[in-house]
Amino acid sequence: MKRNIKNTPKFAVLGAGNSGQTLTAVIASKGFSVKLWNRSSKTVDILNEKGSFEITGLINGFFKADLITTDIEKAIENTDVILVATPSLAHRNVAKTVAPYLTESQTIILNPGATGGALEFRNILDQHNISKKIAIAEAENFIYICRAVETGKVFLKAIKEKCYFSTLPATELDRVTELLHHLHSQFTATSNVLTTSLNYINGMVHPVPLLFNTARAEDPNVEYLHYTEGISPSIAAYIERLDSERMALGQELELEVNSLLDWWRTNYNEPTATSLMDFLEKTHVYDEITAPNTIEHRYIFEDVPFSLVPLSNIGKLLNIPTPCTDAFINLVCAFFDVDFWKEGRTIESLGLSGMTVEEIKKYIETGIK
Amino acid sequence: MKRNIKNTPKFAVLGAGNSGQTLTAVIASKGFSVKLWNRSSKTVDILNEKGSFEITGLINGFFKADLITTDIEKAIENTDVILVATPSLAHRNVAKTVAPYLTESQTIILNPGATGGALEFRNILDQHNISKKIAIAEAENFIYICRAVETGKVFLKAIKEKCYFSTLPATELDRVTELLHHLHSQFTATSNVLTTSLNYINGMVHPVPLLFNTARAEDPNVEYLHYTEGISPSIAAYIERLDSERMALGQELELEVNSLLDWWRTNYNEPTATSLMDFLEKTHVYDEITAPNTIEHRYIFEDVPFSLVPLSNIGKLLNIPTPCTDAFINLVCAFFDVDFWKEGRTIESLGLSGMTVEEIKKYIETGIK
Repeated sequence: MKRNIKNTPKFAVLGAGNSGQTLTAVIASKGFSVKLWNRSSKTVDILNEKGSFEITGLINGFFKADLITTDIEKAIENTDVILVATPSLAHRNVAKTVAPYLTESQTIILNPGATGGALEFRNILDQHNISKKIAIAEAENFIYICRAVETGKVFLKAIKEKCYFSTLPATELDRVTELLHHLHSQFTATSNVLTTSLNYINGMVHPVPLLFNTARAEDPNVEYLHYTEGISPSIAAYIERLDSERMALGQELELEVNSLLDWWRTNYNEPTATSLMDFLEKTHVYDEITAPNTIEHRYIFEDVPFSLVPLSNIGKLLNIPTPCTDAFINLVCAFFDVDFWKEGRTIESLGLSGMTVEEIKKYIETGIK
Repeated sequence: MKRNIKNTPKFAVLGAGNSGQTLTAVIASKGFSVKLWNRSSKTVDILNEKGSFEITGLINGFFKADLITTDIEKAIENTDVILVATPSLAHRNVAKTVAPYLTESQTIILNPGATGGALEFRNILDQHNISKKIAIAEAENFIYICRAVETGKVFLKAIKEKCYFSTLPATELDRVTELLHHLHSQFTATSNVLTTSLNYINGMVHPVPLLFNTARAEDPNVEYLHYTEGISPSIAAYIERLDSERMALGQELELEVNSLLDWWRTNYNEPTATSLMDFLEKTHVYDEITAPNTIEHRYIFEDVPFSLVPLSNIGKLLNIPTPCTDAFINLVCAFFDVDFWKEGRTIESLGLSGMTVEEIKKYIETGIK
């Protein structure tokens, strides 16, 4: 008897960090088959030794993955949904590593995709001549609020009310929605991958406050709150200008892109906030979010190349200037002596070189260039 | 009988801030004639009402200026040495205001000139067809450590051991040295105005630490030390790279330009410091230097346009790249939405457009283009 994918999809999770472990534990807790892959063997060995995941919080209990392995071929073999749960820094490597073993029936979802995740993933698959029939989805953020207490033991604090996602091509949206709703109805379909990519807000809220608090972040004797103390009026004003550059891209592409202020107002229930600074004065949601104690942190090394750089690149493609974004990226490049323009997601790496707006719109809808 | 300038030079001080008031009081205390000009009448009125300056610290007593006025013509009439004691932000206005009333025997000294002060001042005088015979000197920093306790009352803590200055043209150096030594033997002649301009270090130590501590500077509840707490390892490393760009300009022009580290080692007696960070860990000289409590401060609004911008411009003229300087200026422009490239000192405003290195060297030596 043929297995009915619609009722019992099988899952693979790629990446055994905090996110990947929690995804694996939750999927297993729901009775689905799930396999977990990780690049390095250290975590895999510990997890295999423990034998099962302990989860506390919203879900409580011990749950087993079908396989925990460093062998990606085995991890994705006979699975329907491949959930990528690595940092976006690793997406390229994951794409290259997984490409040879993908089969046409599979669906990939990046949790989250940052800016341009699905497009870049697809472009890498194209370079490996992998079938267009594999849908690549990207979530706007990570669906859980969770942390790993220790390897193999996760705390699931909450499931986000809505976790927007999209698919490349957009025509796969209904099918993928059905698949993801086996896990959580909070996965909420949105029009296309440029919508999720432009709505990714980490590039707005992470790098600028961290860099403008460098000395404090690097001081081992000082701890401060990333949002509440780290965003002062000038920083908030600069973020608003970065944000309006991001919004302008959405406007040009006629996509529903929310301002950071709107996102905050809606998600954190402060509908009357009139500015980012006003929101921060009203909210208590960030009262305990401390800042990194180093600037060599994903807030910069991930959110600059995988959010700000692709935003600027999309701006160039659309002839929309992004001067505040660009000046910040340039400074970060100089400050860290790293060419984030090259390391980040570009028009080329997104596979959009030389395309017109109309061609891009057609491509994200149909997957066909 | 003709007055002997060599023995009894007469002084004018332009600018009645902290520096100008202290200069006036000290000059008067030495028995020289001194007149004080200020653009706005508010300070002038208070000073005239008080009738004399009270000075404490190294010098103690009450001393009178010959005139305190908003009329620059009267202020400089029959004076030999015109000491400009305004922020460098005001140098252009001072040059334009004073130009019509200058006479050939007069000498101007900028205290300090920042980067390119004398060159820009001369260029403005050229635009007003003012005689080349007026020497323009610039000091590398301000000769006193002092503060105004209140208007008319100054505290002179110390006279710097050496206050390097230069003249445009350099051929006037001996004559001006003699004039300035009537005031203080600590005025120390150095080769030419590009040497003092490139050795001006405020652009290295002020803007970067302030901007990278924006949230802390803007927090009314937080006070921190600009150097000791505000310069962390990454910030120190970035300043070292800015500094090496400045040094490269000196090298190309074959001038004696000191690194910030050397400057600190020598002036603050930490000869064994191996890096800026190492110096800051060793020294106590900055233990009480608190940071500004706003970023709308001369540390940025003066030191970016009148130090970093001319440094970058000189780099362009010499074909020496200054990427760290440029990236920082660009970010500051974006952050404050101010075109400091335009507001700052440029090749054009310094009067060096289209000149070769040899032509510049001849010009700063002789005053002749």
